[in-house]
Amino acid sequence: MKMKQVYFITENESKFKEARLILQNIKLVMKDLKLEEPKTLDQEQVVKNKAEQAFQKLKKPVIVDDTGIYFSEYKIFPGTYTKTLFQAIGFKGVEKLLDKANRDAYFKTIICYKDGKTEEIFFGIWKGKIVKEISKKFNPDWEYNSIFVPQNFNKPLSEISLQERAKFSHRKKALAKLAKFLGGKNAKKY
Amino acid sequence: MKMKQVYFITENESKFKEARLILQNIKLVMKDLKLEEPKTLDQEQVVKNKAEQAFQKLKKPVIVDDTGIYFSEYKIFPGTYTKTLFQAIGFKGVEKLLDKANRDAYFKTIICYKDGKTEEIFFGIWKGKIVKEISKKFNPDWEYNSIFVPQNFNKPLSEISLQERAKFSHRKKALAKLAKFLGGKNAKKY
Repeated sequence: MKMKQVYFITENESKFKEARLILQNIKLVMKDLKLEEPKTLDQEQVVKNKAEQAFQKLKKPVIVDDTGIYFSEYKIFPGTYTKTLFQAIGFKGVEKLLDKANRDAYFKTIICYKDGKTEEIFFGIWKGKIVKEISKKFNPDWEYNSIFVPQNFNKPLSEISLQERAKFSHRKKALAKLAKFLGGKNAKKY
Repeated sequence: MKMKQVYFITENESKFKEARLILQNIKLVMKDLKLEEPKTLDQEQVVKNKAEQAFQKLKKPVIVDDTGIYFSEYKIFPGTYTKTLFQAIGFKGVEKLLDKANRDAYFKTIICYKDGKTEEIFFGIWKGKIVKEISKKFNPDWEYNSIFVPQNFNKPLSEISLQERAKFSHRKKALAKLAKFLGGKNAKKY
């Protein structure tokens, strides 16, 4: 039987590789489309909107994902503004927003799978805390990883190996749900 | 001589009226178009992008304006995220971002005039300070007016009459520059 082909929309090779490891029962193809970023605080709306854009361009099954961090102190923030907020106010500003307050935070990944018949949404969350001290391990693509300490760990995400992360991460959880939905031999593991 | 007709793109009647008072030498027509909000911290890019959208829809001369507040503590923030930031973190969060720090802020209006031949940008700024105490006069369309005290005033913007504001406001300054550009009898006043 021919494997189903699905386009994973990203410009990020490592995200694609992580997804391919988990979605073993489909033929996953990386595709870098320039999609518009809708301006909204609603993360689910972002992935749905982008999946729609991607599907309209390709007319083939697509997967779009989005990850944001949320500070429990606020309702839905920064979420879809995760990257922008950091660009604008940096670690100093983030620390001010949280200072002396509730330090709880979580990462949330939302994945949207869309084909001509169906649109499905999958969530994954990883809870933790924002610490004051900034890790020396800093990746400009994942700024908050240097100040986010996941629950059951005592070091920031940027210092945790990919292997360790894979067991708990928000993206992994969302991908696992998607794998289950898509079915096949790998689905049972999740 | 027939007056030049220009479309002022807004859903806000009072903005339109203010503009019409200043732009007396053109026939200003209010038009509520649903334009996409580009997701960027660059306010000039926002108005240019929206003027382009509006011009493509109408194929007639258009005016698009955008106003944001900027906290001097940060480089370009919240600016294009003025509304979103308030929705997400409210007065409490804004106060945290500024607490014990530089309280200087300014409003900035950028107007883009666009027709088939030219695209022109006009700025207006009004400096002031963010105060801790929130004015009892609150307008949900202009949240920051309740905490912004303009220079040369000793009360927040929400308590200042429209007549008084008209002499100093960011929007007025930008509109006056536009009036000068468009020429005609009213242009000399500015």
